[in-house]
Amino acid sequence: MNLAIKEALKGFQEDEVPIGAVIVIDGKVISKAHNITDKTQIATKHAEICAIEKACKKTGSWRLSDAEMYITLEPCAMCAGAIANARIKRVYFGAYEKKSGCAASLYPVLSENGLNHSTEYLGGISEEECSALLKNYFKSKRVQKP
Amino acid sequence: MNLAIKEALKGFQEDEVPIGAVIVIDGKVISKAHNITDKTQIATKHAEICAIEKACKKTGSWRLSDAEMYITLEPCAMCAGAIANARIKRVYFGAYEKKSGCAASLYPVLSENGLNHSTEYLGGISEEECSALLKNYFKSKRVQKP
Repeated sequence: MNLAIKEALKGFQEDEVPIGAVIVIDGKVISKAHNITDKTQIATKHAEICAIEKACKKTGSWRLSDAEMYITLEPCAMCAGAIANARIKRVYFGAYEKKSGCAASLYPVLSENGLNHSTEYLGGISEEECSALLKNYFKSKRVQKP
Repeated sequence: MNLAIKEALKGFQEDEVPIGAVIVIDGKVISKAHNITDKTQIATKHAEICAIEKACKKTGSWRLSDAEMYITLEPCAMCAGAIANARIKRVYFGAYEKKSGCAASLYPVLSENGLNHSTEYLGGISEEECSALLKNYFKSKRVQKP
């Protein structure tokens, strides 16, 4: 999770919503990414999507069945759906996203997605740190752009 | 929808699951795409994601608030989430995906996604044709790979 937080911090420095994601297979880091929707102006470029795409390219397969993923925030519907589509084995996430999170909060997309695939998940890891990053980011935006 | 079906047919010819998507803004086709997960071996490369990414690149904005989208199949969680994230105005889709569709079938991600954004949708357009394409594809796979 520390690596995912580092990725989120990179996002913060680039004025992106600070969310980071890391994919690990057999104890080895396969991909790291942070949110780049502002820089790219592409709506799909959340940290999780970027990390999954990099991992697929690196492994040469759309199936990441042995992968574990660390994310600083509970994934949205798009990212939870991508995690399920990529058949990722397990997800660890930091802060809960009560309004739109699709692991535990809004819809249980990781565990019930109609795909006969269930991704295990554990939320609340380094929760305070992950949450503080986002709070500080939005606070700084409010000061800069009142 | 005819253009989306043509895209799906291209997918069929390339041995991809035949799903097509087209994005229109102000009556003008902005992007067209079909599913390319097999060719690219990237789990996220569904027709909708590819069409949204192309449209964002073309318009230079992650917000596609004036866009209407035509899809041959009800979108999955990932794609419905991407449609919501891109703030797409309206979606027309062909066949319903009863197990995993996230417009009307499994979860109402287009209309309730925690984003204060709701995408209108209408399903069942050219439903028989869109559905037959998928059925024929899976039938051909079963014959080829018993």
